[in-house]
Amino acid sequence: MIDLNCDVGEAYGAWVVGSDAALIPLVTSANIACGFHAGDPGVIRATVGIAREHGVAIGAHPGYPDLQGFGRRAMALTPSEIEDTVLYQIGAVAAFARAAGATLAHVKPHGALYNRAARDRQAADAIARAVFRFDPGLILVGLAGSALVEAGKAIGLPVAREAFADRGYEVDGSLRARDLPGALLQSVDAVVAQAISIARDGCVQAVTGERVSVEADTLCLHGDTPGALAWARAVRAGLEQAGITVCHLAEALTRRRRI
Amino acid sequence: MIDLNCDVGEAYGAWVVGSDAALIPLVTSANIACGFHAGDPGVIRATVGIAREHGVAIGAHPGYPDLQGFGRRAMALTPSEIEDTVLYQIGAVAAFARAAGATLAHVKPHGALYNRAARDRQAADAIARAVFRFDPGLILVGLAGSALVEAGKAIGLPVAREAFADRGYEVDGSLRARDLPGALLQSVDAVVAQAISIARDGCVQAVTGERVSVEADTLCLHGDTPGALAWARAVRAGLEQAGITVCHLAEALTRRRRI
Amino acid sequence: MIDLNCDVGEAYGAWVVGSDAALIPLVTSANIACGFHAGDPGVIRATVGIAREHGVAIGAHPGYPDLQGFGRRAMALTPSEIEDTVLYQIGAVAAFARAAGATLAHVKPHGALYNRAARDRQAADAIARAVFRFDPGLILVGLAGSALVEAGKAIGLPVAREAFADRGYEVDGSLRARDLPGALLQSVDAVVAQAISIARDGCVQAVTGERVSVEADTLCLHGDTPGALAWARAVRAGLEQAGITVCHLAEALTRRRRI
Amino acid sequence: MIDLNCDVGEAYGAWVVGSDAALIPLVTSANIACGFHAGDPGVIRATVGIAREHGVAIGAHPGYPDLQGFGRRAMALTPSEIEDTVLYQIGAVAAFARAAGATLAHVKPHGALYNRAARDRQAADAIARAVFRFDPGLILVGLAGSALVEAGKAIGLPVAREAFADRGYEVDGSLRARDLPGALLQSVDAVVAQAISIARDGCVQAVTGERVSVEADTLCLHGDTPGALAWARAVRAGLEQAGITVCHLAEALTRRRRI
Repeated sequence: MIDLNCDVGEAYGAWVVGSDAALIPLVTSANIACGFHAGDPGVIRATVGIAREHGVAIGAHPGYPDLQGFGRRAMALTPSEIEDTVLYQIGAVAAFARAAGATLAHVKPHGALYNRAARDRQAADAIARAVFRFDPGLILVGLAGSALVEAGKAIGLPVAREAFADRGYEVDGSLRARDLPGALLQSVDAVVAQAISIARDGCVQAVTGERVSVEADTLCLHGDTPGALAWARAVRAGLEQAGITVCHLAEALTRRRRI
Repeated sequence: MIDLNCDVGEAYGAWVVGSDAALIPLVTSANIACGFHAGDPGVIRATVGIAREHGVAIGAHPGYPDLQGFGRRAMALTPSEIEDTVLYQIGAVAAFARAAGATLAHVKPHGALYNRAARDRQAADAIARAVFRFDPGLILVGLAGSALVEAGKAIGLPVAREAFADRGYEVDGSLRARDLPGALLQSVDAVVAQAISIARDGCVQAVTGERVSVEADTLCLHGDTPGALAWARAVRAGLEQAGITVCHLAEALTRRRRI
Repeated sequence: MIDLNCDVGEAYGAWVVGSDAALIPLVTSANIACGFHAGDPGVIRATVGIAREHGVAIGAHPGYPDLQGFGRRAMALTPSEIEDTVLYQIGAVAAFARAAGATLAHVKPHGALYNRAARDRQAADAIARAVFRFDPGLILVGLAGSALVEAGKAIGLPVAREAFADRGYEVDGSLRARDLPGALLQSVDAVVAQAISIARDGCVQAVTGERVSVEADTLCLHGDTPGALAWARAVRAGLEQAGITVCHLAEALTRRRRI
Repeated sequence: MIDLNCDVGEAYGAWVVGSDAALIPLVTSANIACGFHAGDPGVIRATVGIAREHGVAIGAHPGYPDLQGFGRRAMALTPSEIEDTVLYQIGAVAAFARAAGATLAHVKPHGALYNRAARDRQAADAIARAVFRFDPGLILVGLAGSALVEAGKAIGLPVAREAFADRGYEVDGSLRARDLPGALLQSVDAVVAQAISIARDGCVQAVTGERVSVEADTLCLHGDTPGALAWARAVRAGLEQAGITVCHLAEALTRRRRI
């Protein structure tokens, strides 16, 4: 069993991006940009609507307050500033879920904040506090093996470990840096194979050839390009053909706990 | 019985403004800026904390997305954009209330949005929809006699009518325009007298001398200047000396309905 | 003789829009968004570079400070605020022209500011003052017959009158409102015919059939869609086949004055 | 001979800060915030006007695009993004100088960008390129001994070295970190003495007691608090009583070169 998630609602004002209407039906969890690095109130409403229509879980995808940099530039916010910034964004997206008769299911930080929370325990704790104080039942999504996953567990949140079907892994289980060869898998077959390997066997083949354990509850799909969308379709189909159940995080976590 | 409200949390980043810590204990309802025309996540957290400490009701004070203009410049948002913009801001402030173990009690639009909602029924309906969809139990605060009060009633929200102790009124019950003589009362005695007159008798003396009916559930106090703060203290004391109970909107509305 | 202009540099951060690289070579004047309604420092640099490479005149395209609304929503700025806002944006784009070894040639306001400046003489005067104070040799571009053209003449700026090949005209020479039938011409042939009619004969056929005088120095081409780009190519080719010289505004205005 | 500079124009919209009208007459160089970390078009116009009225040199004070953080939070902009961001801000402030019949005299980066440019040569080079490409005659102001001073020299800009009368220095000539004891001098006498020592002798007493060389062309005065303003007055008076000429950077640099 595994959840599929994607980052959506990344339009802003007159600027459209991505292909949410095509991507969202392929996943079980939608991470919706909250207006700080992308998204605006109208975009959030529309994206919540698409997710709800397809029965996809609605999540908040908070980022740094850097619209121009799309939240991808590191910013030296203090842990307290991070906590406030994340809480604000969760509240905003949760309001649209509530107005649509749905509830917020999860929170996954975006971009440079996600990367910082993978390594910086103080930042990770700040995010976990914001999520917990809003709703201790929300699922916190972080990179498998990251400080964020530890922070979520420590405060008592349900935690989902994320892995990537289209990224290369180092032998220590970390993601291959984007400026090195092998950072991105090159063929749809390799991507589907890695998705199945993670979901069924809890491991990947590192760029250096070794078998590495990667325990994950959710896989991230991208839809920024027509090619990415085709790969996303292939991953979904490939998982199902391999007999793996693609289901909501909440369900996946519940069953995992039973086992 | 009457509620006293004030607009607070209007700092932004390094810029401090107002005297929230002195003003909030004087009122029963705090309207907290939501980050679009003023306020930021840290300011919202701090202001919610002060309100909670003093047992003051926490409200959202949404405005146009115009930080530079402090939400005081009219902006041609469509009704749909207004609804989304208000819902977003309500959600953000509500998250801080929730994280502090409190609940959001009311919503009062700010500045140019407040003025538009007083006259433009479509805009008023959009605001009322946002409030209702977030929580049909939230109290909507609007200018006494305004389109916003009508819109709130029409959708089924509890509605509070706001009046001003320090503003001149026209014979039709509207506020004297700010560029005309008599727009602002000139002495603390006149302000206290008008506050008592509204709260006890449901009327004011218009700038042209006539007695005008102004039925209000809440009076707005300002604290932007040291003088304003002294006036706010005088109004609070004057009301209590006149035997008028200053209480939360929720209580005032409940008792009014019983009568 | 006529100038062709287009609005470009309308990307922002990670959001790409338009097809500047294809559109700019078709025109003689590029109106570059200045960062308030669209554009950012990197986008401005890149767009100035493309214009310079193709010998296209570099202009500033200032708008309201409303990124989310793309400068298309009316905002109640005072004339003084408009003057400061426009001067700031002109300076910013002029810096990139200067750094590229070029000079700013013209200024054309954007969106809701353009529309207001067509009717509101105080706003038009404020824009004209900002342009004149920066450089009295800059060409001010405004809708033919508008208050902005009058304001520019009054202060002593060279002024260019803009017309539209793809918009319907009323019998009084104003543009057909966008929500009425006939607001947009429907075929490329009609657009090319109107472009030639404006450039050669100084007139158009109104939506109601009458011949209306439209004296223009520049025609605005759009490139937002693949279709628009094809139409832009057709207009350029059609004008040249009709023996009309497409040239820089500065040249067109100089020759006009000689005649 | 020494220049005195101060950071001004740090209001934004409705938020006032500092005491520019009192501080500017005490200095010879005004560093004006450019709208990214503080300042807006109206504030820039007003501040340029005050500087011009008092014969104070007008400079641009560009910062990171982080209004909420007042440009004090590090942001991972690339060197190319820094260059574009600084060029944009220089152009904006230069436009107001030009419209007021003055010229821009210098550029000093702000906050976290200033600190980064003191240590990070690539960032420093990017800033120097932006300044040089706008106008190779502009004076670049950086921390004495910093990478920014080196970058300015390398590209061929006139460079001014900045020191601080109210900050403690380490034995290596660097500023004492703000979280350590001794980071800020505690008495007005000590501040005046350090100002004279830097201006006349080119040295300070380090927090550890040693005599350290600090060669500076300009001293930074602060005016954020009433106390700071009194200190600024004392420094100006103390320097003049000690026979030191307080003059514009341009003059100080010219004479230095002659010697």
